[in-house]
Amino acid sequence: MFVAPLIERKRDGAALTAEEWSALIAAYAADRVPDYQMAALLMAVVFRGLERPELAALTDAMLASGQRLDFGDWPVPRVGKHSTGGVGDKVSLVLAPLVAACGVAVPLIAGRGLGHTGGTLDKLDAIPGFRTSLSLAETKQQVQRIGCALIGQTAEIAPADRRLYALRDVTGTVEALPLIAASIMSKKLAEGLSALVLDVTYGAGAFLPAAEQAIALARTMIGLGEDRGCPTTALLTAMDRPLGRACGNALETEEAILALRGEGPSDLMEVTYALGIEMLLAARVERTTAKARKRLENTLGSGLAAEKFEQIVEAQGGNPRIVDDPGVLPQAQVVEVYAARRTGVVARVEPRPIGRAIVAMGGGRARVEDSVDPSVGFVISVKPGSRVLDGEPIASVYARDASGAELGCDALTRAIVIEDRPGEAPLPLVSHRVTSAGVEQLSPVPGRGAKPAART
Amino acid sequence: MFVAPLIERKRDGAALTAEEWSALIAAYAADRVPDYQMAALLMAVVFRGLERPELAALTDAMLASGQRLDFGDWPVPRVGKHSTGGVGDKVSLVLAPLVAACGVAVPLIAGRGLGHTGGTLDKLDAIPGFRTSLSLAETKQQVQRIGCALIGQTAEIAPADRRLYALRDVTGTVEALPLIAASIMSKKLAEGLSALVLDVTYGAGAFLPAAEQAIALARTMIGLGEDRGCPTTALLTAMDRPLGRACGNALETEEAILALRGEGPSDLMEVTYALGIEMLLAARVERTTAKARKRLENTLGSGLAAEKFEQIVEAQGGNPRIVDDPGVLPQAQVVEVYAARRTGVVARVEPRPIGRAIVAMGGGRARVEDSVDPSVGFVISVKPGSRVLDGEPIASVYARDASGAELGCDALTRAIVIEDRPGEAPLPLVSHRVTSAGVEQLSPVPGRGAKPAART
Repeated sequence: MFVAPLIERKRDGAALTAEEWSALIAAYAADRVPDYQMAALLMAVVFRGLERPELAALTDAMLASGQRLDFGDWPVPRVGKHSTGGVGDKVSLVLAPLVAACGVAVPLIAGRGLGHTGGTLDKLDAIPGFRTSLSLAETKQQVQRIGCALIGQTAEIAPADRRLYALRDVTGTVEALPLIAASIMSKKLAEGLSALVLDVTYGAGAFLPAAEQAIALARTMIGLGEDRGCPTTALLTAMDRPLGRACGNALETEEAILALRGEGPSDLMEVTYALGIEMLLAARVERTTAKARKRLENTLGSGLAAEKFEQIVEAQGGNPRIVDDPGVLPQAQVVEVYAARRTGVVARVEPRPIGRAIVAMGGGRARVEDSVDPSVGFVISVKPGSRVLDGEPIASVYARDASGAELGCDALTRAIVIEDRPGEAPLPLVSHRVTSAGVEQLSPVPGRGAKPAART
Repeated sequence: MFVAPLIERKRDGAALTAEEWSALIAAYAADRVPDYQMAALLMAVVFRGLERPELAALTDAMLASGQRLDFGDWPVPRVGKHSTGGVGDKVSLVLAPLVAACGVAVPLIAGRGLGHTGGTLDKLDAIPGFRTSLSLAETKQQVQRIGCALIGQTAEIAPADRRLYALRDVTGTVEALPLIAASIMSKKLAEGLSALVLDVTYGAGAFLPAAEQAIALARTMIGLGEDRGCPTTALLTAMDRPLGRACGNALETEEAILALRGEGPSDLMEVTYALGIEMLLAARVERTTAKARKRLENTLGSGLAAEKFEQIVEAQGGNPRIVDDPGVLPQAQVVEVYAARRTGVVARVEPRPIGRAIVAMGGGRARVEDSVDPSVGFVISVKPGSRVLDGEPIASVYARDASGAELGCDALTRAIVIEDRPGEAPLPLVSHRVTSAGVEQLSPVPGRGAKPAART
């Protein structure tokens, strides 16, 4: 296959044909196109974008490179979930067992950390013994038995996407709307779903920071899903600060377990419930938002959600004791308390320096082949608007060694901005609902330079 | 080395620091940066360009990845020459021995064919026994003994550029002004020169077709040369039609030998003399254009230039009989005469179809590892403006077999456009002189749609 002329055409702003995308992705999956040519093409796509037929062809080619879950005439509704990622985003770990415990099957193919964002798969890998590489047959069986399986993208599922995803992560080609949409949807469409709910993040810590970009991404993915017979909706959620308190794989898994036990931080719970409501409505097990919320709260409060998580961990070979004793998770060698550098109000907690520091401390990948230390990360107990005193402990750094801890403290100093007065109001946690019918604004989004709301 | 953040910054339009470029190129040369990351970065450079300090750092880093010729206090002036390439461009083979025979040393690192353009190195390889892989020590010795050496880029010379050049060729990242400039200058600055003369081609057959692009490239390379203590000038020459009559490696070597014996086609001689004058002036062996031209003509007419070429061929292990009997060169199996398809005037002779056909007929490379058949090519005896009769022989095709000959004839039918009236006037052979002081227009360049000059 002569790839250079295709790269040149995309570089010069032309569209490739659907047939060319199909052939290219098939050849790449078969190892007949080298990574360096694909990397150059991906960067050209970052600048030139993809036209609608190109995007459809790319998505279909990645989906066709592997197999799909097929639940046949199994009558239980199956609803998928995906987040476009962020820092501290452990929603899937709480949401999947919670919704499964409400009688909706959740077959979830999770991803690894990408760039500065963490991945659900890396968080699951923090659980001793937990096996995310189930075959599709095992996954189907487990979903039919206990309503949920949390797996990684195996060689069976969109293997072309798997290779592309890893390549994008290390070649600066993550932040491209069509590549994000095709990658997500090629995996979600393999889950054998009745419906799909997307969590599209925006704000400084998201791959696409502007709300307009997030809406465009949501609409693109909804179009891809609906065109392929999978009803799809999306919520836009805030990623201008980390979600919850914990950032880092094992620490986030621990926080998710606390949330399943009813002790989750309020921002994490609000996002989890909002998405859970969408999922129950999409599955048609509840008809109104109020009833759906009540059911989620009751399921969590009764311990059924935590119990479901325990079942999943056990079914996938993990240590189920983790639910009662998160101390089973890998522990960092060095824990350092971080104190506020001055008295004032937290104006911002920037997610990117946090996410990048986790990677640099060994909790993410700089290259495809790197392994991850699950124990490193942060617990940050302040939010934008919090009042702090000089010297007051506001965070903890979990590191492999003293130099990692130093790196972590430096990152916190850059990330946690303390000023005399509150900064701009943070983004509403859930601001828009996007469906094939249009965009519904749920909360007003503060504009750039808009006056912050008074705080007392 | 964390390369992804550098790629992201370049992608987003920021400049990398000189230190970052140095570290990156050193790591790439040491095999510590994978090709896929470099390919993505190069594509980002295609879209974002390089700022002046970045370009300087890239050039210096590629130069520093290898060694340089060092002539110490040897008093003979050394003038380098480089052409940005085209079809039928065999100027170096004539010019280097001619200028060397005038008492100016010419250490010349030549390149292979790239894309549709031929390379001096491939033309030299057509000479039986000729060795282009001299060590730098051998090269220096030969230059000091006979005034000239014609070599390829060995592992000693800018190895980082050698790898990047091969990568660019297959990743659609050739046509980027700063990358072209850095690649050329990193090799030329390794030649240990007193001065450098550049032949910057433009027109449909050049990599940068527009005169403005060629001027920008010339100025960029001149800046790089002058800032590093190498006085540099450039001439803009026409590549809207092949130069001379012969296209293809052995055929071009033969035409160069004829030129050295005083039997060269007028366009080839005009470009050769123009560049030769620049070189003699740069070396300060002559002070005026008229005197320099006289000296070049006398040296050629007296047979000293041909004799110098014979010395070079002999010194580098080639068969010196070639100068008296070019029949020693590899001969094509099939020679087919091509006749004009109609009566009329040659409106255009397009270089790209010619160059691409030579590659397709086995005379160039589709992949880095391909070997080249030096015998294939064309001799085209008409120029834009030539009047031809239906059925009149106007070219010959030299091929490996009948199917190659057919391919060649098809290419000629596309390349040689015969119409009722003369087409737009071709570009002047030498149109601009560019120095650090500015751009001097030597001949008017016909504008798009400008009225062609009347021909009789």
